[in-house]
Amino acid sequence: MINVAVLGYGTVGGGVVEVLDKNKEVVAKKAGEEVNLKYILDLRDFPGDKFEDKIVHDFEEIINDPEIDIIAEAMGGVEPAFTFAKRALSNAKSFCTSNKELVAKHGPELIKLAKDNNVNFLFEASVGGGIPIIRPLLDAVTADEIISIEGILNGTTNYILTKMDRDGVDYDTVLKEAQDKGYAERNPEADVEGYDAVRKISILGSLAYGKHIDFEEVYTEGITKISAEDFKYARAIGRAIKLIGSVKHVEGKYYAMVSPLMLSEENPLYAVNGVFNSILVNGNMVDKVMFYGRGAGKLPTASAVVSDIVEEAKLKKTNKPIEWSAQKLEVSDHGNDKKQYFARIKGDPIAKFPEIRKLFAGIDVDLIQLPELEGEFAIVTGMISENDFEEKAKSIYGLISRIRLGK
Amino acid sequence: MINVAVLGYGTVGGGVVEVLDKNKEVVAKKAGEEVNLKYILDLRDFPGDKFEDKIVHDFEEIINDPEIDIIAEAMGGVEPAFTFAKRALSNAKSFCTSNKELVAKHGPELIKLAKDNNVNFLFEASVGGGIPIIRPLLDAVTADEIISIEGILNGTTNYILTKMDRDGVDYDTVLKEAQDKGYAERNPEADVEGYDAVRKISILGSLAYGKHIDFEEVYTEGITKISAEDFKYARAIGRAIKLIGSVKHVEGKYYAMVSPLMLSEENPLYAVNGVFNSILVNGNMVDKVMFYGRGAGKLPTASAVVSDIVEEAKLKKTNKPIEWSAQKLEVSDHGNDKKQYFARIKGDPIAKFPEIRKLFAGIDVDLIQLPELEGEFAIVTGMISENDFEEKAKSIYGLISRIRLGK
Repeated sequence: MINVAVLGYGTVGGGVVEVLDKNKEVVAKKAGEEVNLKYILDLRDFPGDKFEDKIVHDFEEIINDPEIDIIAEAMGGVEPAFTFAKRALSNAKSFCTSNKELVAKHGPELIKLAKDNNVNFLFEASVGGGIPIIRPLLDAVTADEIISIEGILNGTTNYILTKMDRDGVDYDTVLKEAQDKGYAERNPEADVEGYDAVRKISILGSLAYGKHIDFEEVYTEGITKISAEDFKYARAIGRAIKLIGSVKHVEGKYYAMVSPLMLSEENPLYAVNGVFNSILVNGNMVDKVMFYGRGAGKLPTASAVVSDIVEEAKLKKTNKPIEWSAQKLEVSDHGNDKKQYFARIKGDPIAKFPEIRKLFAGIDVDLIQLPELEGEFAIVTGMISENDFEEKAKSIYGLISRIRLGK
Repeated sequence: MINVAVLGYGTVGGGVVEVLDKNKEVVAKKAGEEVNLKYILDLRDFPGDKFEDKIVHDFEEIINDPEIDIIAEAMGGVEPAFTFAKRALSNAKSFCTSNKELVAKHGPELIKLAKDNNVNFLFEASVGGGIPIIRPLLDAVTADEIISIEGILNGTTNYILTKMDRDGVDYDTVLKEAQDKGYAERNPEADVEGYDAVRKISILGSLAYGKHIDFEEVYTEGITKISAEDFKYARAIGRAIKLIGSVKHVEGKYYAMVSPLMLSEENPLYAVNGVFNSILVNGNMVDKVMFYGRGAGKLPTASAVVSDIVEEAKLKKTNKPIEWSAQKLEVSDHGNDKKQYFARIKGDPIAKFPEIRKLFAGIDVDLIQLPELEGEFAIVTGMISENDFEEKAKSIYGLISRIRLGK
């Protein structure tokens, strides 16, 4: 029998308890032995709760119990999760977590500490909620050089963008509706500004390339400036606007970024709608493989946490190496990366488009005009470096917005 | 250093050799040691080939070499692959394969033999080509009861169906074109009749439920009767026609089947087009997760075979248990399973639809008429058991075709 403690009895923690309870049999079968929930750490009491008797308020009770083999953390935030993780691993207790802040910030240190103590630090649920992505990346796509990873990594923003696209309404309207429905937080900054996605893509990139990507150094652009009009143009050119986190390895250089992209129908992420997340891994042999599912939510996320518990049970306290060193991955300036651009411009194209063509001399520029949008037009450029585009964009009088194109 | 022999220097075998060569570094890093290709077994000689000196014609040379740790088979067909697999495992050499015929037919026996000899029998490439699906199913979706697995498991048929849909042409025309392009075999039976897909879904179902599904007992219907007109109706009701292999566990009963299904846009398999494959796993906690990629092709399939070699290298000749017993899974009669049906009928709906409604008394029946298809109409029924539908269908005079609806 394996004894588990769950830290935090909120949404995800409650889900972990529920999965361990309802799927007790299948979990025991997969783990090879019974998985027993011994403690739930929470500051609150839960009178009348089915697991009331498991609640403890003091982490010391858990860490000092030699029977506890695995600690599953679902509190979120860097502290006290980081302190608890270090103490657990130092005391030869495996630790698994759904906490992307913790993993993005302290992943390498905790992986090393787990190794030093011959236990495991696992974090399947920290990216993509219920979607198996960490494990496949580490254990399945092992014959490939990873060329790139692109992902829809945040369900709230994907819900908002899908809704804007389908209903033709503005960002603020959809955000408010999403907040009313509980799909978006009252303070939506972490989601809509890309702060959530950038942690997740930094975790995936660090695992793909074995060195640490500091999420604070990754260019991050959210969705707050996307308009209903942008979607009209996108649809006219057969594209969808998605918030994409990406890392890639091109000609010896590494790039990482979070930003809205206009994706073509050829990209399998194009069809990923609503609260779903999806991660596209591009290997030099396997080509593109995609992993899709619920990127958040109580039970899907808990399912991923419990899959870590099952793996830790199977590993029986031997360390499984994870290559993610503390050494920083040098991420190249995204300004030198080449992309196509969409730009929306105020004014009459008959007057303005000739000068724009001149401005982008040597680079193809297509004109898009939509009958329903008077007094403006849009352009789509050929491949151009971000720096070059931004420099030229300064000379475009009446520039309303610009969105990068993805493949 | 790990020594590997590759059996069969055809498309997939050649791919395995290429991946081991081109990705030598990444493979060594993931495997934890150098992976050395020592032999390639093939009846032919390959004068001038880069790996000419590795070619051997006699399996005895491989099986009797104590330095060989892993044998990777890419010959296809049950024999001599089965004999070679048994001899390899009995000689404590791990065996991995891309051979779905072998795995579907003899999976449980080879898994047991591997266990008895403390080595491994791995077969990631046997389903979904380059898509990681076997490993995720065994190692990642471990906290869930698997409610169902549905998959687009054959690239040739998905290419044909996609092409029929997009170009509005008939099955025979597209098949011929696919054959000319090399996407379909001269004898396309294994693909178009679903014989390939049924082996793959039987493998996935056996792994999901731990008992053996005999593919020969699974109801299998191919795509040869699908017409351009069926696609017109499908589009009119917002659906796509896909060849789906499925297993499910409902109210204590197991069902398995391969057949064309009309899928709604809500199903993530709806948007899987061309040669791509995709597998949707529905767990009771994680909900739907999907795995997508290239289901065939030299390098994608080889990538999966090499990922098995990497795993076997990491396992260092300790057996990793795989639950797939020789005990047969009792698959219920699909005739008792309830589904919605689409049926295309010759004649005038004004005259015929009232009697059809009477025939299906108690079950909703919708009428579809397309202006461009004169002298015929179609119906979509509510949920009805397959047996009931087939019984009633006998009384529909002028029935042209029927296709099940999927979710």
